Amino acid sequence: MEYTQKALGDLILRVGGPDASAMDDARRRQAQLAKPPGSLGRLEELSVQLAGITGKVCNQLENKALLVFCADNGVVSEGVASAPQSVTLAQTINLTRGKTGAAVLAQRFGCRLRVCDIGVNADIHESAVIDRKIAYGTQNIAAGPAMTREQAVRAILTGAELAKETIGEGAQVVGVGEMGIGNTTTSAAVLSVLTGADVQTVTGRGAGITDDAFEKKRRVIETAIRTNRPDPADPADVLAKVGGFDLAAMAGAFLGAAESRVPAVIDGFISAVAALCAVRLCPNARHFLIPSHASYEIGYRIAVDALGLAPLFDLGMRLGEGSGCPIAMMMLDAACAVMNDMATFEQAGIDDDYLEPIRKTDSFTVKNL
Amino acid sequence: MEYTQKALGDLILRVGGPDASAMDDARRRQAQLAKPPGSLGRLEELSVQLAGITGKVCNQLENKALLVFCADNGVVSEGVASAPQSVTLAQTINLTRGKTGAAVLAQRFGCRLRVCDIGVNADIHESAVIDRKIAYGTQNIAAGPAMTREQAVRAILTGAELAKETIGEGAQVVGVGEMGIGNTTTSAAVLSVLTGADVQTVTGRGAGITDDAFEKKRRVIETAIRTNRPDPADPADVLAKVGGFDLAAMAGAFLGAAESRVPAVIDGFISAVAALCAVRLCPNARHFLIPSHASYEIGYRIAVDALGLAPLFDLGMRLGEGSGCPIAMMMLDAACAVMNDMATFEQAGIDDDYLEPIRKTDSFTVKNL
Repeated sequence: MEYTQKALGDLILRVGGPDASAMDDARRRQAQLAKPPGSLGRLEELSVQLAGITGKVCNQLENKALLVFCADNGVVSEGVASAPQSVTLAQTINLTRGKTGAAVLAQRFGCRLRVCDIGVNADIHESAVIDRKIAYGTQNIAAGPAMTREQAVRAILTGAELAKETIGEGAQVVGVGEMGIGNTTTSAAVLSVLTGADVQTVTGRGAGITDDAFEKKRRVIETAIRTNRPDPADPADVLAKVGGFDLAAMAGAFLGAAESRVPAVIDGFISAVAALCAVRLCPNARHFLIPSHASYEIGYRIAVDALGLAPLFDLGMRLGEGSGCPIAMMMLDAACAVMNDMATFEQAGIDDDYLEPIRKTDSFTVKNL
Repeated sequence: MEYTQKALGDLILRVGGPDASAMDDARRRQAQLAKPPGSLGRLEELSVQLAGITGKVCNQLENKALLVFCADNGVVSEGVASAPQSVTLAQTINLTRGKTGAAVLAQRFGCRLRVCDIGVNADIHESAVIDRKIAYGTQNIAAGPAMTREQAVRAILTGAELAKETIGEGAQVVGVGEMGIGNTTTSAAVLSVLTGADVQTVTGRGAGITDDAFEKKRRVIETAIRTNRPDPADPADVLAKVGGFDLAAMAGAFLGAAESRVPAVIDGFISAVAALCAVRLCPNARHFLIPSHASYEIGYRIAVDALGLAPLFDLGMRLGEGSGCPIAMMMLDAACAVMNDMATFEQAGIDDDYLEPIRKTDSFTVKNL
């Protein structure tokens, strides 16, 4: 594969829209299932969205995968993060050992974990980590661009490639997570540029920083945007100038899943910003996105609002790593179970009287009992 | 077992409080796990609550059960429900055949389903339905009490008995659901009496009724309360006068789980009202309650506010049957996985610098890699 701007343009063109006919069929079947119309709420909506993604009314997402992109961010030299940079390396390796938050959740819910070094600032001697390192971390965005445009395009296409490879190996749904100290800073910068939202409104405390560091973080983000002048209409430029390898690869993973017509699950704040980059690159990618939890990180809501999505659950989580994805995949399983296994009114022996707003006479008969 | 007021009083006395020492141990262990403090939000809180329930820091809730109490409600003769009464019978049987919404979700998530006839208005010739019928439905609460006090006490104790029996057979967590046409009407009446909330604020459209029927439903509830004058300080009286066999048995199931020190999962509106009855009978029962989804039914929020709980997820569901419970149980599994399987900072090679708000020097060392 060539990691060129042309290859990225071709990828974007290959992403199709939802299958409207399958969605209509799915809505029709939902209306026939033995329950008050709409009473399963978003499980019904998810089943219709899945039909639009796969082209099939009944789906099974038994084969699940979580992709975690790991990279370092040069901006940590500004003192914007609560943890030292080497935590990126430690947790990248711990992910593959099944010991981090996302790893134990993936394991619990039968979700294959693929951990990719897309730019960790260390040599990793651990074969379970997929080596796609582009550089030993990005440059400090407060001083100049995080990376070259070529590197940004390469990171996006590498993320797409990894998603497609994972899907090629059987995955029917992919989650997209990250590990990278400093990446709430880069994500806030990217989100501010893409949406025009004020830096104050998109910047949170990440893993937990002091008031002073929080104030510094906001100033650093403002400086980064002023210094680099990214073009909001050109997401690759935004990612190159104020983003990171993790964000770029994640955006690519969303595109790769969309090209393969497989649902892609967003984790929290950083994952949502990456999804927004994907949709700004390729509006059709939106149809393949499944939100998970409402991240506690303040910018999350702005990112999902910009995507036109709403989270499925709110557990006050802000760990990252893709930790929300395995739980959201359970909800997709629930949506599939409803569509695949519930009886229709006809099978349930509940005739159309059930749908009348008020029973006139109890003429209802229980069939097939 | 004798189904007497004395037996109920004894049951209530046997429900203990949470194990504060196990909760402290659980909090200490959470603080040692390799993640920013609090970053797994409610999964951390759930793990601490589970420790308080079971007395153990590490828990496994592999053996799951959903109890569904089915009964008819005489108030349907007022025209307050969208479905005919015989749907209670049809869906009671369909539950045991694995074809209703809750049944397919229970199946999907490995949750044993136990369906109990506590007062369906029909003879049920289906061995999979557990026969604990107290009567062929309740009386019309708009005209008089739903049942006698003796029947209410019997229903509560029967629910407790079924929960304890299920736990005796191995269940480590129980969900509490229902099937009973007309039971959003009785639930709204009970909730209004117990909380003093205006009937207008607790009454919703149930499975979906017309404006006229909605207005009638509110008038019927007001009439039922005015006619029966239930004593808000005496939950058994409230259940007997304006409740139902389903609600009473569900309240009992929450008490039975609490007595057995097993977490009990609330489904939606009706289940939350039953849980409130349990807590008003026995304040200690509250510590054993796990909320699931934010029901779309309007009174739900008032019920969980009165319980001091907040839902874990919001899928816009309003099906009942216990359909939210299997999904909430997955979140309990997630909470257990985090507590049981995540590495501590020491095991993760992330030393205390990680906890410092701002890194002074990058003295961090990656251990054990």
